[in-house]
Amino acid sequence: MTNKKEIIASIIIIGNEVLSGRTKDLNTSTLSVWLNSIGISVREVRVIPDVEKIIVDTVNELRNKFDYVFTTGGIGPTHDDITAQSISKVFNLEYGFHKQAFSILEKYYEPGEFNEGRQKMAKMPTTAKLILNPSSGAPGFYIENVFCLPGVPSILKAMLGGLNNVLVGGDPILSKTINLRTYESEIAESLTNVQNNNKDVEIGSYPFFRQGKLGVSIVLRSVDQSKIDNCNSQILEFIKKKNIEVVEID
Amino acid sequence: MTNKKEIIASIIIIGNEVLSGRTKDLNTSTLSVWLNSIGISVREVRVIPDVEKIIVDTVNELRNKFDYVFTTGGIGPTHDDITAQSISKVFNLEYGFHKQAFSILEKYYEPGEFNEGRQKMAKMPTTAKLILNPSSGAPGFYIENVFCLPGVPSILKAMLGGLNNVLVGGDPILSKTINLRTYESEIAESLTNVQNNNKDVEIGSYPFFRQGKLGVSIVLRSVDQSKIDNCNSQILEFIKKKNIEVVEID
Repeated sequence: MTNKKEIIASIIIIGNEVLSGRTKDLNTSTLSVWLNSIGISVREVRVIPDVEKIIVDTVNELRNKFDYVFTTGGIGPTHDDITAQSISKVFNLEYGFHKQAFSILEKYYEPGEFNEGRQKMAKMPTTAKLILNPSSGAPGFYIENVFCLPGVPSILKAMLGGLNNVLVGGDPILSKTINLRTYESEIAESLTNVQNNNKDVEIGSYPFFRQGKLGVSIVLRSVDQSKIDNCNSQILEFIKKKNIEVVEID
Repeated sequence: MTNKKEIIASIIIIGNEVLSGRTKDLNTSTLSVWLNSIGISVREVRVIPDVEKIIVDTVNELRNKFDYVFTTGGIGPTHDDITAQSISKVFNLEYGFHKQAFSILEKYYEPGEFNEGRQKMAKMPTTAKLILNPSSGAPGFYIENVFCLPGVPSILKAMLGGLNNVLVGGDPILSKTINLRTYESEIAESLTNVQNNNKDVEIGSYPFFRQGKLGVSIVLRSVDQSKIDNCNSQILEFIKKKNIEVVEID
């Protein structure tokens, strides 16, 4: 097993619509699962309002604490989309038309349809690098370790592929889930012992209700498959002794 | 209209399962919608791991910045449930069996079934006030302005009623949504004008895709219904001029 430094990231969800409860955030899950697969671990998520000073302060705090920061939301054409200008302030860079972004959008729209609102989507730190958008033209962008993505989940998802060769990850973070027909309290003590004997594996325990039946999912996470397997065996051992039904392992 | 001080809150989602992307957070939406209805505005959400020092530091930072802090998750019986002991450290209070919580759980379980795992759910700051749990026995608790709720969405939801007489809110935050068959770029400029003329109303613009059709939701939020209505009229005026179809107003 390698002893690579762990690569850590944070996500900033920019949007009053999530804070008000109107919209449920789906982007954290999409981003985290994808980042884990390329060996980047998400350690903190913040949801903040569309307020410039808060965006600037939050990005500044987190870009110094984490290897990567991903923002979602606020890069559209309306007045409440202020991520690009806020990021320009963070890095003290000129905010204006980005030549390449302008040219992409100009080609994307029919002649005469590239109006003022749409042109705003080409405004960002003028020296930013672009994150191309295969699904709706308007690109995201990044400066240093801060990556700005859109808030619409399907568009965000379509843009991740473009980051594959930009981000430097570590070993992929692997996981195994053991679904049991039991209560958490029945296995708490045994599971604590397994965790104490396997400090390098993150062991989570989550109750679930499915088709009217209660159960517990035990989730093992590590970059090392053999450590997960070892942990898994120790859990199956006490499960067998306790006569607990295994519903599914995946 | 009253000029009451706005009451502001933050939510801390404690859980590796949300950071890993395995679980989508539903509790922010439930809490925010309910808090808005009693005049409390959620200004920040953080998702943090099950790590004591991070929990302690985050709660300490946010309880000084906001009128209320709500935590979700980490109050179950397993080794990764460390919210209660972390909150004890935040307030420098004894962590141990809470008499009333112990007695509630003892009555909840059948004789002989109140095992060590389940007893752990009665451990918390011994002087905490309880948040009763009508759905599964184990209570939440609060100290000063920090309220600790479970992570399971259905149980959290069932417990909110018990906070009605504890939280002091302001005027309920009202909202109106205007769904249009248009693109954001078509209305961006007019909407900016309306926002500039109605500084007290928070105006959000969100693209949507529904039944294969694109549209935009404009969301107006304020504690003052007349200001929302005024804003709504100004929007409908430019919508009419632009010949844009109104899909629905709610």
